[in-house]
Amino acid sequence: MATLWHNLQVVGQPKVNAIITDGPTIRWLGAIDDARDYQQRHDLAHAWVTPGLIDCHTHLVFGAQRAHEFDLRLQGQSYAQIAQAGGGIAATVQATREATHESLYQSAKARLLQLITDGVTTVEIKSGYGLDAPSERKMLQVIRQLAQDLPVTIRATALLAHALPAEFKDEPERYIDWVCQILPVLHADQLIDAVDAFCEHIAFTPAQVARVFDCAKQLHLPVKLHAEQLSLQGGGALAARYQALSADHLEYLDEAGVAAMAKAGTVAVLLPGAYYLLRETKAPPIELLRHYQVPMAIASDCNPGTSPSLSLRLMMNMACTLFRLTPAEALAGVTEHGARALGMSATTGRLAPGFAADMVAWQIDDPAELCYWLGGQLPHQRVYQGVCDAASSI
Amino acid sequence: MATLWHNLQVVGQPKVNAIITDGPTIRWLGAIDDARDYQQRHDLAHAWVTPGLIDCHTHLVFGAQRAHEFDLRLQGQSYAQIAQAGGGIAATVQATREATHESLYQSAKARLLQLITDGVTTVEIKSGYGLDAPSERKMLQVIRQLAQDLPVTIRATALLAHALPAEFKDEPERYIDWVCQILPVLHADQLIDAVDAFCEHIAFTPAQVARVFDCAKQLHLPVKLHAEQLSLQGGGALAARYQALSADHLEYLDEAGVAAMAKAGTVAVLLPGAYYLLRETKAPPIELLRHYQVPMAIASDCNPGTSPSLSLRLMMNMACTLFRLTPAEALAGVTEHGARALGMSATTGRLAPGFAADMVAWQIDDPAELCYWLGGQLPHQRVYQGVCDAASSI
Ligand SMILES: [Zn+2]
Ligand SMILES: [Zn+2]
Repeated sequence: MATLWHNLQVVGQPKVNAIITDGPTIRWLGAIDDARDYQQRHDLAHAWVTPGLIDCHTHLVFGAQRAHEFDLRLQGQSYAQIAQAGGGIAATVQATREATHESLYQSAKARLLQLITDGVTTVEIKSGYGLDAPSERKMLQVIRQLAQDLPVTIRATALLAHALPAEFKDEPERYIDWVCQILPVLHADQLIDAVDAFCEHIAFTPAQVARVFDCAKQLHLPVKLHAEQLSLQGGGALAARYQALSADHLEYLDEAGVAAMAKAGTVAVLLPGAYYLLRETKAPPIELLRHYQVPMAIASDCNPGTSPSLSLRLMMNMACTLFRLTPAEALAGVTEHGARALGMSATTGRLAPGFAADMVAWQIDDPAELCYWLGGQLPHQRVYQGVCDAASSI
Repeated sequence: MATLWHNLQVVGQPKVNAIITDGPTIRWLGAIDDARDYQQRHDLAHAWVTPGLIDCHTHLVFGAQRAHEFDLRLQGQSYAQIAQAGGGIAATVQATREATHESLYQSAKARLLQLITDGVTTVEIKSGYGLDAPSERKMLQVIRQLAQDLPVTIRATALLAHALPAEFKDEPERYIDWVCQILPVLHADQLIDAVDAFCEHIAFTPAQVARVFDCAKQLHLPVKLHAEQLSLQGGGALAARYQALSADHLEYLDEAGVAAMAKAGTVAVLLPGAYYLLRETKAPPIELLRHYQVPMAIASDCNPGTSPSLSLRLMMNMACTLFRLTPAEALAGVTEHGARALGMSATTGRLAPGFAADMVAWQIDDPAELCYWLGGQLPHQRVYQGVCDAASSI
C-alpha cells in the first residue's frame, strides 16, 4: 500500500515537501502538487525528515556492564591495576561466556531499544567478547534474534580478532590459526555479514590481521578494521589494501593512510564516545580526510569499557564538539556514510526512490538541532520500512 | 496516606530496604521487618533508590534555540563575528523579548519535561534574557506557571545582572541602578526566590555585583554568582563575603577563593556542559575544593548558547569524565549538595525522615551506572511528593 508523507522538509532538497513510500521502499519525492497514486496520507506537521539513523559500529551484545571499573578509575586506580585484578575486556569476556543466550539477548535488546528510540533504523553489532566457539556463536545468534524481533536492520560482524583470550596467552599466531578455522564454520551457518579485527599494539599486528582478512576474502566476506586508535600501526593502509568497508577510530591515522583509504573507497568511521571517555587529546585527521574526500561516518561504539553509549545523537554532538565536524557532516556520518561503512549504500541511508523507507521526522526548526542539544530526546516520529513506530513522540 | 516502598537498596545505607512515605514526606527508613503503619505497598524490584535529582542551575526559559550559531562556529566563524551579526546572548534577549508568555512557557515546558524524565524533582530556573522590566517579569511569571503545572519543585532566580542590554551600552553603572530599582518590585510580586549575577570581564565587575548583592540583602533574598568562569575576578571570595548559596562555574577559582567559600558555606556549582561545549581546558580546582571540604554540586546550566543540555545524568558523566569527580561525588552533587545550593538542604536532597518524598528508583545493578552510561535513559521510576509518575519506565 502506498503512503504519502507530506508537510515536511528535507535537508538539501528545498523543493521536496512530500514523499511517497510503497511498502518498505521510497517510491517518489517531490512537491505535494505532483503527488499521485497513494492510498493513505500522513501529515508530518512541517517536520524535518532525515533518513533513519545508521549506527555502523557497536558492540552492544555483552555480558555485564563495567560501571564498577569506571568508578575505580575515578578513585585513582590505573588501567593496569584494574586489568591485573581481572577487569578490562577480560571481565567482559568472562561475563559473556557465562551469560545465557536469554540474558545476553535481554540486556542487548534494552540497549538496542535505546538506540532505536533515538532514531536509529540500521545498526551493526559485533561479536568478539566470546573468543571461543560456543560463546562467539552465542553472541552471533543473539544478534540474529535481535534482527528478527525488533524493527531495525542489523548487520552482524565477526570480531574474533578482538583480543587474545587467556587460553592462547603468548600464542597469538595459534589463536589466529583458530580464528581462520572457525570463521568458515560460523559463516556456513549464516551468522556473519562481515569480518572485523583490532590492529593495535595491545591487540593484533598488521600481519596477523592480514591473515584474518585473507580468510575473510576466501569466504567473500567484506572486512572492517579497528585501526590507529592508540598508535600508528598502518591499519588504515592495511584496511585499504583489502578494500575494507571501513577503518574505525583513526586518531593516529597518517596522510599515507588517508590517501590509501581514499583510493580504496574505505570509509573512516569516527568514534567520538571512546575518544571522549578515554580523554584522548589527538583527534582523527579530519582536515586530511576532508581533503582526500574520504567519507566520514560516526558511530556509538556502544561497549562496556570505552564507550557505554546509548545515543547516536550524542555521538553526533561529540563529533561536532570534539572533532569539529559540521552538523551537515555529522548527519551524513549517521546516514549515507554510515550505510556505506556497512556496504549498504545502494539500499539505505538516503531519501531517494528505491531506497529503504527508513526515515525520521524530527519536530525541530533547524537540522543543526540534531547535533546541538546535549542529551535528552528530540521529539520525532521514526518510520521503519514504511511503518511508523506505535509510540510516536511527536 | 502512608505508603511502604520495599525491595529496594539505598547507597550508603546497607541495612535499609524499605521506606515509608506519608503524603509528600518521608516518614521512616529501615529494614522491612520493622515497617509499621502503612496503608499501601510498592515493590520496587530491588531498585537502587536515590533522592530525586536536583538541577540547581538552569536558564531553561528562553526565546529561541541557537543551533544555527552552533553550525556557524563549526563552519569557522568566530564568536566575535557571530556577535557582530547580532548573535550570541543578544539574539536570545531579542527572541525572549519578542516571545509571548505562551510560547516561552511551551518551549520551556518541553525542556523541563526532558529533565523530569531523567529523574529531576527540583530545578532552579533563572531569568536574565529579558533585561527590561516587562520581559524579566514575563520570564519569572513563566517560571511560576511551570511550578504550578508540573510535578517538580522550582526555585526562581532573578539574574538581571546577566549581560548589559543595548539600551545601556557603555553605562553599566546606570544599568545596575535600574536593576536595584526593579528587584524590589519583582520581589514584592513574589516572583523571586534568589538573586544571581555574572561576574566576568565580559559582564559585570565585582563592585557592580556587590551593588546588586547589597540590594538583595536589603530584600532578605539569598544570592548566587556566576564566578571565575573565564578569568579570575575574585568572584568566589565576593560570593563568600555575601554568604552566597553558591558560586557557579569556577574554572579559574584560586585557593583564597576556595578557602573563603569553605568558611562561608558557599556551595561550588560545577557546570561541565558549558566547559565541554566551549572546549575549555582549565577545569575547576577539584582537589582544592575537596581539601577545603567545599560541597560540590553539578547542574545542567541548560541554556541556548553554551550548554543546550537536556540531561542532568549526562552532566554527571561529564563531571566524572572531565572533572574527575567520583560517581559518589557526582550523586551528592545532584542531590544533597544541589539542595544546599538552593538553600533547601533542610527539606530535600536526602533520604531521611522529614525530608521530601522525592525519590528515584533506578533499575540498575550498581549506583555508578548513573554516571557511567553515555546518553539514553536508564529505566527508572520517579516519585514526586510521594506520588509515582504515571508513565513508569520500570
Ligand atoms: Zn569497536
Ligand atoms: Zn548560568
